[in-house]
Amino acid sequence: MNKLLIVGTVAFDAIETPFGKTDKILGGSAPYIGLSASQFDTASAIVSVVGGDFPETHLELFRQHNIDVSGIEIISSGKTFFWSGRYHNDMNTRDTLSTELNVLSDFQPVVPSKFKDANVVVLGNLHPLVQSSVLNQVTNKEALVILDTMNFWMDNTLEDLIKVIKRVDVITINDEEARQLSGQSSLVAAARKIHTMGPKYVVIKKGEHGALLFSGDNVFFAPALPLEEVFDPTGAGDTFAGGFAGFLSKTNNFTFENMKKAVVYGSALASFTVEKFGTERISNLSSKEVFERLQMFKNLTQFDIELT
Amino acid sequence: MNKLLIVGTVAFDAIETPFGKTDKILGGSAPYIGLSASQFDTASAIVSVVGGDFPETHLELFRQHNIDVSGIEIISSGKTFFWSGRYHNDMNTRDTLSTELNVLSDFQPVVPSKFKDANVVVLGNLHPLVQSSVLNQVTNKEALVILDTMNFWMDNTLEDLIKVIKRVDVITINDEEARQLSGQSSLVAAARKIHTMGPKYVVIKKGEHGALLFSGDNVFFAPALPLEEVFDPTGAGDTFAGGFAGFLSKTNNFTFENMKKAVVYGSALASFTVEKFGTERISNLSSKEVFERLQMFKNLTQFDIELT
Repeated sequence: MNKLLIVGTVAFDAIETPFGKTDKILGGSAPYIGLSASQFDTASAIVSVVGGDFPETHLELFRQHNIDVSGIEIISSGKTFFWSGRYHNDMNTRDTLSTELNVLSDFQPVVPSKFKDANVVVLGNLHPLVQSSVLNQVTNKEALVILDTMNFWMDNTLEDLIKVIKRVDVITINDEEARQLSGQSSLVAAARKIHTMGPKYVVIKKGEHGALLFSGDNVFFAPALPLEEVFDPTGAGDTFAGGFAGFLSKTNNFTFENMKKAVVYGSALASFTVEKFGTERISNLSSKEVFERLQMFKNLTQFDIELT
Repeated sequence: MNKLLIVGTVAFDAIETPFGKTDKILGGSAPYIGLSASQFDTASAIVSVVGGDFPETHLELFRQHNIDVSGIEIISSGKTFFWSGRYHNDMNTRDTLSTELNVLSDFQPVVPSKFKDANVVVLGNLHPLVQSSVLNQVTNKEALVILDTMNFWMDNTLEDLIKVIKRVDVITINDEEARQLSGQSSLVAAARKIHTMGPKYVVIKKGEHGALLFSGDNVFFAPALPLEEVFDPTGAGDTFAGGFAGFLSKTNNFTFENMKKAVVYGSALASFTVEKFGTERISNLSSKEVFERLQMFKNLTQFDIELT
């Protein structure tokens, strides 16, 4: 079985939307990525850090989804990273109410030996030096490396970010971040510029407006499924990344044609996450439900025009 | 040959974008609809009104594209409808600098006899009573009627608008207008509400974010082609409507599957219009160029996932 290595945050989130609010629930990028990737037949591991307040039940959830947790360091004397935020009525914008880094401030990632030869590596949104440190521990030179980042690192650690971007195969960022990183307003021009910074593949996430995959002159687009109601957008981007990476790890095929399929799987899985708070929906997902959603995706996008 | 009847404005536009500005050029909804539809093998006619200042060369342009102009009334003593506007740097928003209705204020549409039995009728964005008046002259009870409208009519003539909407098969509006008309924030819910108002098909145009086609529980999405540069967005929505209507008139097949193809043709044609000012690009379009753009569209959206 192929192996998928995931580094990312494991956190407590407190989320407020127009539909309700949560206490401290499981959050952070790694759980969404890992649970989403667990839909595919590959062995995955999370590298992260949590405090003594992190409940065993969450670790058990990972294990039940065939996610190796030996790379999740537990600092008993510390507290788990905490984020709280409130979504506005349009569900597209949110205010951060509180961010407590806690044990994350001194995170020194250690990749478990048996995952150093993973065929796909996801560097979740973290300090670029943490992302680099993980890459330095990876022994498989053929591994597909996928990096997620955000405007915070562009604002504060641009030099380090540029160094790690140079070493990765795929970058996933949102449209505003692509414009900021490239200095280009057109996404086509932005992707072209980002290619020259290193990544052969550029995935631009546009939230409810879908995702674009660029590689040289090739471009592919997957919409977000039109939903009756978005309940909680938290984690949709990470769920996308997890589906994308999980499919690629399982198939071990990094051609543009296969990347397109990975984008479709990622988009389909992300559409579940927004239906409930946090990881609830993606933690309880049958293969039949995924199958049906993929069918909806095909109906939504596929047409039959013969060009001869 | 099938027949396509188009009622809409024929105007002079003066457009300013970050890339330059025009004098009074050919504008209005009907020219974009007609020129776009002329890519398909159907006989079309424009019903509209212009003033004595409208140059013969523009009428000749229509004739060259196989568009019947006998329904374009010329009021020699009057002036043609004039609009001028300035786009902001993001090209998604614009300010109207001037609107002079001129001969349009008393427009009494007269449908040429030989187009009363058209198989497809496009009611371009106009006063709902003008749209109704055209419908009253149509004799083919099986005709597919497509209505375009905008927030101005919702704000000022909602009762008349609701009456004409009840009589049409397809409505095309943008996302904000769909929300306004339905009172629903989700586009899925908006489309469902608008179905109950009459139209069996609801097309929601999202500009650079593509277009959605709804019919009952069926939904299809076509993205806008990602472009290096948008030069002038004026007329993109009307070009979409013209391609959509032209394809349907030619094929005379109003199933959901064929509507999907019509949306793709409309989207592909709209991507040309934004490349130059006004109707310039859509007036000079080879079938080879259209073919190539459709190929780009397939590459952009089609994938190969077997669901068994």
